[in-house]
Formats: sequence, structure tokens, C-alpha cells
Amino acid sequence: MSVISDLPSRFRFVLVRTSHPGNIGSAARAMRTMGFTRMELVSPHRFPDREVSAMAAGADDVLEGAGVHAGLVEALAGTSFALGLSARRRGVNLPELTPREAAAQALAAAERGGQVALVFGNERTGLENDELARCHAMVRIPSVDDFSSLNLAQAVQVMAYEVRLASLAEKLPTPPPLHDEPPADAAQMERFFEHLSQTLDDIDFHKGRAPTTIMLRLRKLFLRAQMDERELRMLHGILADAQRMAQLANGKK
Amino acid sequence: MSVISDLPSRFRFVLVRTSHPGNIGSAARAMRTMGFTRMELVSPHRFPDREVSAMAAGADDVLEGAGVHAGLVEALAGTSFALGLSARRRGVNLPELTPREAAAQALAAAERGGQVALVFGNERTGLENDELARCHAMVRIPSVDDFSSLNLAQAVQVMAYEVRLASLAEKLPTPPPLHDEPPADAAQMERFFEHLSQTLDDIDFHKGRAPTTIMLRLRKLFLRAQMDERELRMLHGILADAQRMAQLANGKK
Repeated sequence: MSVISDLPSRFRFVLVRTSHPGNIGSAARAMRTMGFTRMELVSPHRFPDREVSAMAAGADDVLEGAGVHAGLVEALAGTSFALGLSARRRGVNLPELTPREAAAQALAAAERGGQVALVFGNERTGLENDELARCHAMVRIPSVDDFSSLNLAQAVQVMAYEVRLASLAEKLPTPPPLHDEPPADAAQMERFFEHLSQTLDDIDFHKGRAPTTIMLRLRKLFLRAQMDERELRMLHGILADAQRMAQLANGKK
Repeated sequence: MSVISDLPSRFRFVLVRTSHPGNIGSAARAMRTMGFTRMELVSPHRFPDREVSAMAAGADDVLEGAGVHAGLVEALAGTSFALGLSARRRGVNLPELTPREAAAQALAAAERGGQVALVFGNERTGLENDELARCHAMVRIPSVDDFSSLNLAQAVQVMAYEVRLASLAEKLPTPPPLHDEPPADAAQMERFFEHLSQTLDDIDFHKGRAPTTIMLRLRKLFLRAQMDERELRMLHGILADAQRMAQLANGKK
């Protein structure tokens, strides 16, 4: 029970470039009904706003605590598992989960001690590819093909509902920890991807290839692996040695 | 497939004494995203109304076909199974179902050839006892105790979503594969680990470290990622470039 009651605090709902302030309010209410209070806003068009509070219907604690960020990276700070809601398959080749599968995985990540983000895009345009690229998987709510777009707050409601159900479900034995070490968080992963990209430059791997495609594929691969901090340190060490070799090779050309 | 596509027509969403026309529109949209089009309104405060259409976001077929009734009895005409949504237990002694249980029972009733009603009360006061008394069971969406009231359209969304999931359950398409490419097999992974280990030697990463421990950790990491063949080719390419740099560096010592 104590484990369960702590769980909601490990989740944050991230709303990216939300156009309509009323949707922020409705989303806050939807979260609150399911016990979630942490909202992070990325470049909201209008916030705070009278319409936000009107639609929140009393979920003021959610709005008062909401962080406002310039970019998704900041909003994901400290998270180890991020799920991006998307109505469509795009260029980004991420694993696609149903809300129920997503809730199960998110809960498992939270039970392992991680922070989890559920990321919702702009009402009209959804999440951009570079935003989805920061997510571990994509969630598609199984709407009908000819009317597939849920209102933003409705999507928040469905996800909050599924995560709450998963957390209420018969208490499963705690999943064996994936790692002994703390999971790598979003910022650490970004630093790793920068180091990796720089190293691929240094060893001339990018030469003649499209670095964006390569990096998207490597992102997908390494995010899927859900690494811990020790693994990340080991990979940084390998990259540093490869860079040193490249320096020696070039210095002696 | 023909059974499935016929099923949504056996469901109607009944909104009783709805105060806010915007909620009727949002409910129509919520229904429509899940493939449901039949709405029955009992004594709506304002309908039709400009706000209804604005919030429906294109679910006009739902609104155009919506019946308007003076009482619940008329709205339930022809149904064989009715479920009343309620946030609270009242005097009415009805079986109480979760949305998921309710969806399963509703689907079973529809598959037996019946018409099913999902009944939603007024935003503030819910369903009256005499209205609940016309339902076969009560559905409670498992919200938190201290903030239990979902917005009306959110409750409609959750129920529509659960019924759609239940109807898709038996015929769920196989989940989309994690990869477009064939997964790497055990032999391919072994070749990769050999290449990786050799490269770590070449770039002097193993120097002073226990190669066995390192390789066990890397194995664990890369096996967890469940790579496909294309990803493996990419990683082989990176390793080859790192080896080339090491050769250059050493050859020029």
C-alpha cells in the first residue's frame, strides 16, 4: 500500500506546445481524478490563463505546481522512461504500445525507482519527430481510422486511467530490478548521444552517411536498452578511447 | 470482422439533463473516436447550441442523429441492457462494476443481439435514484477519493474506450513488430560480441581492466536491446571504423 501511494509522484504529464488553455485545465482535472499531480508544460501558448483555471474544476494543486519549460529536454529532466502519445505512425521508428501495454511498462519503470513521463503534443500537430525521438516508445490510443483524433485532455484521461488501473491491479511481486544501479536519466542519455555523435565524427563514421538517420537509429537502440548509470560510464569510457585513437591517427597523418 | 463492424450500432450513449452544451459536443467527439455514433439526450438544458458543435470537432453525424427525449424511459426504448455511470454509491442497491467489467458485460449483451445503453447523469447531481433504478448495473470509474468527479465527456471517453477495447480484444491484430528487419539471432550476436571485444583490445580500452567483467556487462546491455540485423550491421560499421583509427594510430607510432 505504501508502495502504491508513492507511485503517482513518480509520474509526470508533459504537455507540449498546447494551443488551448482550456485543454491544460481539463488535463489537470483528468490527471487529478486519477491521483496524479505533476504537470510540466513546454511552451504553452497561454499560461497561466483564466480559461485554464475554469476548466480545471478545482485541480488547482496541479496547476500551481506546473513547471513551464522552453523545450522538452528540460521537461524530461530526471526521467528514465518517456512515452510519447501519437495518433499516427511517423518517420520515427519507435516501438508502438497500446495504452494498456504502456501503463504496464510505465508502472514497471516507476517500481524500479525511475521517473516516468507521459508526453502529449500540440492539439493539431501532435509531437514532432525530434520530440518523439526523446521517448522510449510511442503510445497509440486505439481510435477508429476515420476519426482518430482524441481531444488532448481525453487522451490524458485515458492514459491516467490506465496507469491508475495498472497500479490498482492485484499487487504483483515487485519486478526483479533491471539494474543494480540507478537508471540513466534523460539528461545523461542526451550527453551520451552527444558524445556518441562526436565520436562517430572523429572516427570518420559519419563520412558519406546521413548522420541524422544514423543517430535516430542509435537513439532508438540505446533508449530501448534502458541503461543504468554504470553502463553509461562504461560506454563513455569506450567512446573516449576511440576518440583518443582517432586523435593519434590524425595527429600522426 | 462483420460482427465487429456491426457492434457499435448496438450501443447508445444516453446523456441525462446535461447542463453544459459544450459537454454534449465533447461527448460526441469522444464517442466518435471510438466508433460510436448513437447519442440520446434526455432533457438537455441547451440543445442544439453553437457550443455543442464547437466542441464536437467534426463529430456532426453523432449530433445530427441525436434523439431528444423528455425522460429516460423513452431514451432507453428498445434496449435490453443499461449501465448507469455513478461516482457515488446511493440508496439504489445495484451491482457495481468497474468500467472494464461493464464493457465485457455490455459487449456480451450486444453479441447476444441486444441493444445496450450507457447512461450518464447531470454534471453536478449525477443520476437520480429513479434513473439508476432503470439500469441493470452501476459503473464506477475508479477515481481517487478526494477528487472523484470526472468531467462528463471524460467519463464518456473512458467508457467508449473500454467498450471498443473489449470489442477489439478477440481480434487484436498481432502487435506491430519491434523492428522492420529480422531480429539478430544468437550466432550474429556472438559475432558482434567478438568484434566488440577485439575492438576494445585495439583501442586499448581493455588495458588495465578485467575484460571478462566488461564483456559480461556489454553482453547484458546489448542483449537487452533485442537488436535487429540492420542495427547490428550499423554497429559493426562503427567498430570497423574505430579499429581502422586504432591501426592508423599504432601504425604511425
